[in-house]
Amino acid sequence: MSNPHLIGLDWGTTACRAYLIGAGGEVLARVTDGPGILRVESGAFGAALDTMIAGWPALPMILSGMIGSRQGWKEAPYAHCPAATGDIVAALTRIEHAGRAIALVPGLSCENGGMPDVMRGEETQILGALEIAKQDGGVFLLPGTHSKWAGVTGGCIASFRTFMTGEVFGALKDHTILGRLMREGAPDADGFARGVRASTTLTSAGALLNRLFATRTYGLMNRLPDTALSDYLSGLLVGAEIAEATKQIENPVTIIASPALAHRYTEALKLLGHESALAPADCGAAGHWRIARAAGLC
Amino acid sequence: MSNPHLIGLDWGTTACRAYLIGAGGEVLARVTDGPGILRVESGAFGAALDTMIAGWPALPMILSGMIGSRQGWKEAPYAHCPAATGDIVAALTRIEHAGRAIALVPGLSCENGGMPDVMRGEETQILGALEIAKQDGGVFLLPGTHSKWAGVTGGCIASFRTFMTGEVFGALKDHTILGRLMREGAPDADGFARGVRASTTLTSAGALLNRLFATRTYGLMNRLPDTALSDYLSGLLVGAEIAEATKQIENPVTIIASPALAHRYTEALKLLGHESALAPADCGAAGHWRIARAAGLC
Repeated sequence: MSNPHLIGLDWGTTACRAYLIGAGGEVLARVTDGPGILRVESGAFGAALDTMIAGWPALPMILSGMIGSRQGWKEAPYAHCPAATGDIVAALTRIEHAGRAIALVPGLSCENGGMPDVMRGEETQILGALEIAKQDGGVFLLPGTHSKWAGVTGGCIASFRTFMTGEVFGALKDHTILGRLMREGAPDADGFARGVRASTTLTSAGALLNRLFATRTYGLMNRLPDTALSDYLSGLLVGAEIAEATKQIENPVTIIASPALAHRYTEALKLLGHESALAPADCGAAGHWRIARAAGLC
Repeated sequence: MSNPHLIGLDWGTTACRAYLIGAGGEVLARVTDGPGILRVESGAFGAALDTMIAGWPALPMILSGMIGSRQGWKEAPYAHCPAATGDIVAALTRIEHAGRAIALVPGLSCENGGMPDVMRGEETQILGALEIAKQDGGVFLLPGTHSKWAGVTGGCIASFRTFMTGEVFGALKDHTILGRLMREGAPDADGFARGVRASTTLTSAGALLNRLFATRTYGLMNRLPDTALSDYLSGLLVGAEIAEATKQIENPVTIIASPALAHRYTEALKLLGHESALAPADCGAAGHWRIARAAGLC
């Protein structure tokens, strides 16, 4: 085991991952169940940090994600796209905790057709994925509560778009009539595929507001088992997201996600005729290492 | 005042309206704050009915809406579109309460491109609106939690579509990050209009999942006041609904709704280049009278 050189934290709204990183960027130890910023009481981020990395050596620290938002430890103003590693390094926000320097990675902002968009944390994972694959371009998908699709050229995150797919799915399932007929069961691949295929028939934004209701009527009319309704709804939303996001994409899509979520998107991409590849684990740590090294922190 | 001839109830999921109806179909008295079926404990619908119409004479009764659903008093199986008054009469479900006959109006079902759709209660309001206007056709919009758009020709409800606009709006506002930056205020016509106009730029279902996020980023970037964000989101969804629903519509749209909701949709229709007219109040009672008379109940 090489000597540890850096501590990196990917500190989001609902979860935190901490990495002890070696001289070559490799992960030597990790904490995967740290509390998201919303679960840190009274903003006691220093104490939460100390608990997570207890026993790790005193090393330079770099934090990415919502920890750098207005609701986090300190606001790290967005860097604007197109943004390369150097632009992110130039926008690092420094704080001190217990006599140790901490760098907060800025989120990125961009503008698409008059709509501002923002990300926090995903930029670090993307830079890490590029680092691991020794690439300087590609299309990256980071699915989840807020799916991010980013285009990278020449090592530079050129632009990106957010799709609220995961959060919309949760709100519809838990807080509308669509959840009423659903019953939990094993993932239903057929229900999911039917949802993805149905998404291809939608030719407008409003058509989605109509088609969502099929999640109820298929249940009412016994055309889908109650254990498949949740997957149908998921397929409908994921399919709609992919159809829009891939409109001008030729490259294969690189997915940065947990295995379960990556599997879901891989299947949907396949159904819609797109190739995809899965990024290795620990892209976040690789991104921390890349940014910290470029900033001269380690 | 003419003699009362009929009692009609429009008994939905969250509210109930009861009408005491005269010989010409006019409303002689009304109760507007009855409990929806979900608020009637242990399904004690008879007792709830007795409370609502206490003091009214013993007359034939006709009930429309979710009271005829599986979760209601007794399930009244759907009549299938195209459906005229006679088809609805033929599908009335009869029950008895305290020695008095009650007719339950069936909901309607239809099929659009492989997707089943259903309504309960709106068919009665539509038939009532036709009755009052002495028309036998038109396009009817009943906005709300689940907006219904119905096409009527020759006195026959030919087909309809449901848009989950209202319920999606509520779920997004109350149960996603989009509500976080919103502040309650007077209705913001400019925010609403910006949402409606933004909806016209969306060329796919997935584009909506992206554009929703503008409700957050406009707030983050101070491009809309926090009191306008809720109206922006509303305009985005209402505009998307209208754009899809009016794809093949030439007629002016007749809106059956409360004044506040009707105003919102009238404004959005105008912004999108469509004419609309407002149906008179009490379409529900007129529908009850029309169906009951055709059934020989009064």
